[in-house]
Amino acid sequence: MRPIMTVEEIHAFLDREFPQIHVDGRALAVTDVRPGELAMRFDPSDRHLRPGNTISGPSMVMLADVAAYAVILAHIGPVALAVTTSLNINFLRKPQLAPLFCDCRLLKLGKRLAVIDCLLTQQSGGEPVAHATATYSIPPR
Amino acid sequence: MRPIMTVEEIHAFLDREFPQIHVDGRALAVTDVRPGELAMRFDPSDRHLRPGNTISGPSMVMLADVAAYAVILAHIGPVALAVTTSLNINFLRKPQLAPLFCDCRLLKLGKRLAVIDCLLTQQSGGEPVAHATATYSIPPR
Amino acid sequence: MRPIMTVEEIHAFLDREFPQIHVDGRALAVTDVRPGELAMRFDPSDRHLRPGNTISGPSMVMLADVAAYAVILAHIGPVALAVTTSLNINFLRKPQLAPLFCDCRLLKLGKRLAVIDCLLTQQSGGEPVAHATATYSIPPR
Amino acid sequence: MRPIMTVEEIHAFLDREFPQIHVDGRALAVTDVRPGELAMRFDPSDRHLRPGNTISGPSMVMLADVAAYAVILAHIGPVALAVTTSLNINFLRKPQLAPLFCDCRLLKLGKRLAVIDCLLTQQSGGEPVAHATATYSIPPR
Repeated sequence: MRPIMTVEEIHAFLDREFPQIHVDGRALAVTDVRPGELAMRFDPSDRHLRPGNTISGPSMVMLADVAAYAVILAHIGPVALAVTTSLNINFLRKPQLAPLFCDCRLLKLGKRLAVIDCLLTQQSGGEPVAHATATYSIPPR
Repeated sequence: MRPIMTVEEIHAFLDREFPQIHVDGRALAVTDVRPGELAMRFDPSDRHLRPGNTISGPSMVMLADVAAYAVILAHIGPVALAVTTSLNINFLRKPQLAPLFCDCRLLKLGKRLAVIDCLLTQQSGGEPVAHATATYSIPPR
Repeated sequence: MRPIMTVEEIHAFLDREFPQIHVDGRALAVTDVRPGELAMRFDPSDRHLRPGNTISGPSMVMLADVAAYAVILAHIGPVALAVTTSLNINFLRKPQLAPLFCDCRLLKLGKRLAVIDCLLTQQSGGEPVAHATATYSIPPR
Repeated sequence: MRPIMTVEEIHAFLDREFPQIHVDGRALAVTDVRPGELAMRFDPSDRHLRPGNTISGPSMVMLADVAAYAVILAHIGPVALAVTTSLNINFLRKPQLAPLFCDCRLLKLGKRLAVIDCLLTQQSGGEPVAHATATYSIPPR
């Protein structure tokens, strides 16, 4: 399972096809692509806040969802349009208003379905703030 | 299981405690509260769009999460601060860029945990566009 | 969404293709089939017990999984072989060692994916003991 | 996060408190305990079969559920009685009728809730056959 797109190619594709994810500024960036894996960084702003100076749950879902989409893209190329069919998330610890990192791993990249494991942390090797599993449907190629 | 807050009281509480949910205008409104149940309406705007003129998955998660929070609030009152511990969502059909309705039902309202079933549709009795189950932790009272 | 198999036809198919589900005696029976819906009854025995005279979680998963399979079968007929791709379950209340009923509803029956909502109770109209959502992949027909 | 029970102590506790899991012979065994982690082996028999010589989904759920319980036990000791509150599983590849290994990791071990990540494989370093996330409620101590 080797990636066939570089970080720059993924950014260019997302900018072109998903301009909405940058509607509040460039809050999301792919930081690494490796065989079967991808890492994304999220810089939250005021709009992602919740009482207690924490990041909202739906913002964490958004990060996991975009990162999961990007790891599929990196491995099947910019042609197919995968759509999320399900997402399960466990919120583990209250994040602080600071950058959030999502490490994604392809558990399966089949012809019709991809399953991705996402771990969200705030510092390298730190305790996870959330864990998500996302399922994407891959259209016939 | 009887609600102890009215629609107006829930709105007043959310406005005061969760101003962030209105950061892009008043997109969310409780439309009904009944024993064990609550309905919420979401009016999406451009920022909730995805390619193909559809509503983004994280926007649907946000609707389910806020509605699930509101149905707990309606039944335990404005004192406790419940936090989402997990959320599972299945995306069933591509929604159109039109109002989205979330019907929430308390499957369980325990001392420590609440579990809520959420069905998202675009017209009364229409086919569901998404289904979510959310779990909230309720702090000691 | 009309069922195309009767209760008897579903039983005959399960007996022939899934004899394993009866390995401990006939513990599972379809009790009703309706448009988009199916009900199944489970009679637990000692092997499904857990300390505290309750029914084990995996036994409840088994009930939801077989009932979800049966509701798909009832609506697409005995030809296709659907396989479970994911299952999410919330355990709500401790069941007693007594029959368990599963009410299934097709949230979506697409060409490639089916999503089923399952509510487990112990008496009609009683409080639910568990809620599950199952996803099945439907092979090309 | 250091384990406070050995493999032998966990086995002795499970034998005493959960004799039901051995109702068909000793199919489950803890093979390793490490800080925050535990590994369990499952030897399936005919009763766990499904058509196509594969292992049933509920059997995989049972393995994940018992292993998740054991990893909590290993870290909090034999006093508390944790109960599963939710479980989410993705079935990734059809397992063969051969031993199944479950690697569990504590994502969170809080005062009230534990969240465990479970990966099921059939050979060391092989592709996963299933991935589960389980949530347990921990009673007040």
